[in-house]
Amino acid sequence: MWAVLTVVVVFEFTVGATLSKSINRGCATLIAGALGVGGHHLATTVGERGEAFVLGILVFILAAGATFLRFVPKIKARYDYGMVIFILTFCLVTVSGYRVEELVELAHQRLSTIIIGASTCMIISIFVCPVWAGADLHKLVASNIEKLANYLEGFEGEYFHSLKDKEKSKSLLQGYKSVLNSKAIEESLTNFARWEPGHGGFSLRHPWKQYMKIGVLVRECAYKIETLNTYLNPEIQASLEFKCKIQEPCTKMSSESNKALKAISSSMKTMTNPLAAKSHIENSKTAIEELKVALEVISLEDVELLAIIPVATVAAILEEITFSVEKIYDSVSELSHLAHFKSVEPNVSPEKPPLLHRGIIKPVVDIDNNAPHVEITIQDLCMESPEKARKDTLEILQS
Amino acid sequence: MWAVLTVVVVFEFTVGATLSKSINRGCATLIAGALGVGGHHLATTVGERGEAFVLGILVFILAAGATFLRFVPKIKARYDYGMVIFILTFCLVTVSGYRVEELVELAHQRLSTIIIGASTCMIISIFVCPVWAGADLHKLVASNIEKLANYLEGFEGEYFHSLKDKEKSKSLLQGYKSVLNSKAIEESLTNFARWEPGHGGFSLRHPWKQYMKIGVLVRECAYKIETLNTYLNPEIQASLEFKCKIQEPCTKMSSESNKALKAISSSMKTMTNPLAAKSHIENSKTAIEELKVALEVISLEDVELLAIIPVATVAAILEEITFSVEKIYDSVSELSHLAHFKSVEPNVSPEKPPLLHRGIIKPVVDIDNNAPHVEITIQDLCMESPEKARKDTLEILQS
Repeated sequence: MWAVLTVVVVFEFTVGATLSKSINRGCATLIAGALGVGGHHLATTVGERGEAFVLGILVFILAAGATFLRFVPKIKARYDYGMVIFILTFCLVTVSGYRVEELVELAHQRLSTIIIGASTCMIISIFVCPVWAGADLHKLVASNIEKLANYLEGFEGEYFHSLKDKEKSKSLLQGYKSVLNSKAIEESLTNFARWEPGHGGFSLRHPWKQYMKIGVLVRECAYKIETLNTYLNPEIQASLEFKCKIQEPCTKMSSESNKALKAISSSMKTMTNPLAAKSHIENSKTAIEELKVALEVISLEDVELLAIIPVATVAAILEEITFSVEKIYDSVSELSHLAHFKSVEPNVSPEKPPLLHRGIIKPVVDIDNNAPHVEITIQDLCMESPEKARKDTLEILQS
Repeated sequence: MWAVLTVVVVFEFTVGATLSKSINRGCATLIAGALGVGGHHLATTVGERGEAFVLGILVFILAAGATFLRFVPKIKARYDYGMVIFILTFCLVTVSGYRVEELVELAHQRLSTIIIGASTCMIISIFVCPVWAGADLHKLVASNIEKLANYLEGFEGEYFHSLKDKEKSKSLLQGYKSVLNSKAIEESLTNFARWEPGHGGFSLRHPWKQYMKIGVLVRECAYKIETLNTYLNPEIQASLEFKCKIQEPCTKMSSESNKALKAISSSMKTMTNPLAAKSHIENSKTAIEELKVALEVISLEDVELLAIIPVATVAAILEEITFSVEKIYDSVSELSHLAHFKSVEPNVSPEKPPLLHRGIIKPVVDIDNNAPHVEITIQDLCMESPEKARKDTLEILQS
């Protein structure tokens, strides 16, 4: 019957929680039982009059010590259950007043039933439909990153009206809210994941702590998104003209950050290294430079400062989000390194050499009126991306 | 001995947690015991062959039902412990195979020991050094609001260099971080607070749910502060000239929001209504209008857009924080209304009439060259605040 009771008490939803409870219970019972029997033996040697006194002091010291330890946060998180069982068993053994021989017999019985119950639980939770806390944590972090990516996609559609499907962008904008308060669940899953044996792609010594670090960065990014979200309020009056002028670099920043986050998330899901996100992050950095160039070019005459500030704020927050995404990338890279994720070469076409070296753009100085200009071979240029063409042309003109 | 065990298992840090566990344990044991005895009685009427069968089905249905209920989030939060004890006791009673008369005796014994143990716990936790979850929650929310206020004070000092004491402003800037992740602890305290009897200024039907609503708004404000915090980075190049131009309304916004938050927090601590914060909120709203006026006046020639954007972003986020503070105020007002906080008339001096009506400023139109100007009685003006003087003078000149 004790075995049945152990099963009821110990069984939990995830493997990690069940293991943590079983091991806590087993160890605590063993240690408390041994100490109890030892204490009893000690007390009987003192003689009948001192026995109760010695036992009382022992119970007081150990129970007070264990109760005090329960309030230390680190121990509370991992060994709380074990501490309770320890106090319980120790009191039970010492107070019960059995003779030592009976006690050893009792302890043997109790321990064997607990071992039967706990090992049944462990075997069932591991082999029948296991729910691994570690796998859950991994999925949770990856899906949190994806939620941020979805938000950026939705924001682009909603703010710059690039998405036709209003309903879709609305639904994309909601997901990030749950990321804001994900700390508690991530912490408890990390705690349970530590107890789990290797499973799936996760080894016994998987760097679960790194997930907490990624979680912190993901939440930081989510906080910025929360602030960004207030600027979707249609009541805020913003200059449409100014919005159009910086729309291109801003959409590029947000879409490249979005792609980078999606690449990071999918690399986590497939447990490969996130190198594919690298190029998107580079692109988003170029977009920041482009934004700066665009801002320098804009003439400030006939501009109302009051109307451009909300748009400028959105651009500034998008820039901050881009930096945040890079930090997330670095942190996930570290995880992929620590956990030996499969390395995958990103199949990105190597960057072509500048157009100048391929003769598509030729700098010319006209000797007659001394005006420098460039000659462009239109047919070849059409094969290039317009961005690259403009960038290279600008470079030549500046030099 | 069972009484001692109950004490060990049931005793918790806060009164609410102890009460919740005691009541859960007591009720669960009572119901499970009654059902167990009833089930046993039913099984014995069927006859010896069907007895095991009927008992097996009963255990299966009830244990499965209770286990399933444990996974419902709302029940998990409040009655998880009771459910475990229910399953345990029911199994114990039905499986044990005692005769019904013995069972009633056993149940009576168990129940009385549990009642003794649990009531000892309750009495000790309530009367000897009680730690009330409700009072803790109240203090936590009030101190969170104060932390936001401290941040705003520190930010003002750090960003506009108005505070001389660098160390002090650094320390003020750290507190808000803990607010970001306060959701989990607020939720658990709210859960426990529901179980507590009236204590201190809190009645039995104190609106604990309202604290969760305030908590959400406080966290929203903290997210904005987190974004604001990135702009303290000295690497971000900002135009000093532009900063000076909008410094006054910005400092006013942040210092009035700071004062409003401090007033709200101290009104919560003293359990009075937060009317004192009202005037500060009005002032911060005026500051927003002043900022708009200041922005309209600034000439945009010789201004680099790139250098003013970080400063403008700071101003925009401060504006958002001001709105957030107003929401917090509304929510705390609702709490003070629901919980019947003492009402205190704020001892704010009534606003003086405009300077025009008191003859301190006189509009004059010079007939010779038709130029309107104002005459100001300097001596009287010195008694006024410079802001009010400027505002009234401007009003007259505009009209």
